[in-house]
Amino acid sequence: MTLQILPVIMSGGSGTRLWPLSTPAAPKQFHALATDNTMIQETVLRLIGDSFLRPVAICGRGHLDLVTAQLEAIGHPPQEVILEPFGRNTAAVAAMAALSGLALAPEALILMVPADHVIAQPSAFLEAVMAAGETAKTRIVTFGIQPSHPETGFGYIERGAELSPGNYEIARFLEKPDLATATQYVAGGSHVWNAGIFLFSPQVMLEELELHAPEVLAACRTAYETARREGPAVHLDDVIFGQVPSISIDYAVMEHTQRSAVVPCDIGWADVGGFRELWRLADKDNHGNHVKGDAILIEAENCLIRNDGGPIVAIIDMADIMVISTPSGILIAPLSRAQDVKKAAEAAKSFLNLGAKS
Amino acid sequence: MTLQILPVIMSGGSGTRLWPLSTPAAPKQFHALATDNTMIQETVLRLIGDSFLRPVAICGRGHLDLVTAQLEAIGHPPQEVILEPFGRNTAAVAAMAALSGLALAPEALILMVPADHVIAQPSAFLEAVMAAGETAKTRIVTFGIQPSHPETGFGYIERGAELSPGNYEIARFLEKPDLATATQYVAGGSHVWNAGIFLFSPQVMLEELELHAPEVLAACRTAYETARREGPAVHLDDVIFGQVPSISIDYAVMEHTQRSAVVPCDIGWADVGGFRELWRLADKDNHGNHVKGDAILIEAENCLIRNDGGPIVAIIDMADIMVISTPSGILIAPLSRAQDVKKAAEAAKSFLNLGAKS
Repeated sequence: MTLQILPVIMSGGSGTRLWPLSTPAAPKQFHALATDNTMIQETVLRLIGDSFLRPVAICGRGHLDLVTAQLEAIGHPPQEVILEPFGRNTAAVAAMAALSGLALAPEALILMVPADHVIAQPSAFLEAVMAAGETAKTRIVTFGIQPSHPETGFGYIERGAELSPGNYEIARFLEKPDLATATQYVAGGSHVWNAGIFLFSPQVMLEELELHAPEVLAACRTAYETARREGPAVHLDDVIFGQVPSISIDYAVMEHTQRSAVVPCDIGWADVGGFRELWRLADKDNHGNHVKGDAILIEAENCLIRNDGGPIVAIIDMADIMVISTPSGILIAPLSRAQDVKKAAEAAKSFLNLGAKS
Repeated sequence: MTLQILPVIMSGGSGTRLWPLSTPAAPKQFHALATDNTMIQETVLRLIGDSFLRPVAICGRGHLDLVTAQLEAIGHPPQEVILEPFGRNTAAVAAMAALSGLALAPEALILMVPADHVIAQPSAFLEAVMAAGETAKTRIVTFGIQPSHPETGFGYIERGAELSPGNYEIARFLEKPDLATATQYVAGGSHVWNAGIFLFSPQVMLEELELHAPEVLAACRTAYETARREGPAVHLDDVIFGQVPSISIDYAVMEHTQRSAVVPCDIGWADVGGFRELWRLADKDNHGNHVKGDAILIEAENCLIRNDGGPIVAIIDMADIMVISTPSGILIAPLSRAQDVKKAAEAAKSFLNLGAKS
């Protein structure tokens, strides 16, 4: 029998690292960053075919319309949209995914994927998923990204003994390393990036949550069962969901369970954690500029220029900068300062709050 | 008897050097650049008092509402607004000024001033005007700006013999010099900048136009006399005004007449020909930044940030640049490239035209 997989799209997060493109009202998964589709659309579009059921999405309450509209626009409306009144970290998301899977397709495996990652080689990703299918019937599989460089911004997973071709036990989870440590990891060949992509059966996840994070599971089960349903929308109650401890699935389950596995893969994965990464991934002209939207470049080099619906942007004699123009704000900074964008986002928030008060 | 002066405000010009702030629909004289008033408002506000009649404005046809509204807003509505269907240079403007003055106040002197100049010491300017009053009854007086530095972007006037205290004959007009020549001019002490500000009696101007530019005068007279009038508006006819030769008052009259004079003055004058000049003139914070409108500065130095009604602008780690954000466009460039702003303005024009066609 063919493997049946239920994609569960994790559309949480309202990061400030891509402000003003990404805002609380429309975080980055709802924007077209690397392609003409939005990131959540790309995420769903790479998980279609005979093995895949219609997706489930888990998102913030305010994003119901965005999720529904964007997935309907590509012809893949969600079976369920589970609406969190506020974020409660990824253990709660995994619990909701398992509960939803048990209700909708108990025989299927659940592929839980973030809505805001780039995967440049989707067919390699699908191969990795299929290669993990057998293991995932009894273990929670996480996909580890073969590191291309000694990145210090990600957590790592060290693989253990081989379970079957391409499937390994997990020796340990490792926090974000310093550069020397990251360099050792890359040289050693047995460490991969922790990308937060999981394949599991609902039963196994529920059993492991029961064992290692029973409070998370109990509160999530009550919240899921008492939720108000309206079409595909599953409205979780504020008070009940507020009882769920906020903890990551790695801390809650993965670092403790005996039933885990890692499948290393090389799939052109990227987190797009900031504008420098976006510029690195994007198509560029002969001068190293990536331009999206109406813009005039006069002597510009290695710039990221995005004009998302604002007035025309003109740049003269600038290099290595980003200019992001949206109706929410305009950001101008060196690409090398991409990590400081969140400061601007925070300041913009305070600024707008002050303005609203006065 | 007190000197009576009719201010004639020259509000032509639709320069591209301050794009996107300045646009054909609203050139720089209609914007608040150096103060909270617009430049045309400042121009009128420095010419009020017992000696001054209500002003006349000469502007492009499309700017009637702007001129009227901005002068009414400061309580000095114009007596006449002479509407040119297109620009025909400054000889035509001087002729219209003289014809209007003859009609409205034949005994008054006409003070013809550009609407888009900064004069930081208005009382010094008024003193210079008063000091020129006697001479202006028989000569066309131009006010020469004492040069503060060897500027190569302006024409110069060399003064001749003294006519009366502070009033001089004009030895010659000089085109924009190279730096060596400009340095000599400044060192010599007998050269001043040609600012295009004139004081004259309508009769003298009309006689000198008749003598040196009879075609300009004849066509302007016909246009002024046949104009359609509606309240203060004087609508010049396209075809008739189209007969007026396009020539500057300097070329047409000033370089030929025997009846000219120059009054040197030191009045904090500036042309605001570009954003670098605007930054130089503007109030700045401790880091050398001039900020107008909603903006967030994180590690910014010596920047000009103007947000005229756009979304909030955030700058991280930038120095010596200008950011001009308006509903018409967003400009980002080093202040040192202010002279290239017109390239961006031209490109924006082509871009928008292309967009409109497609």
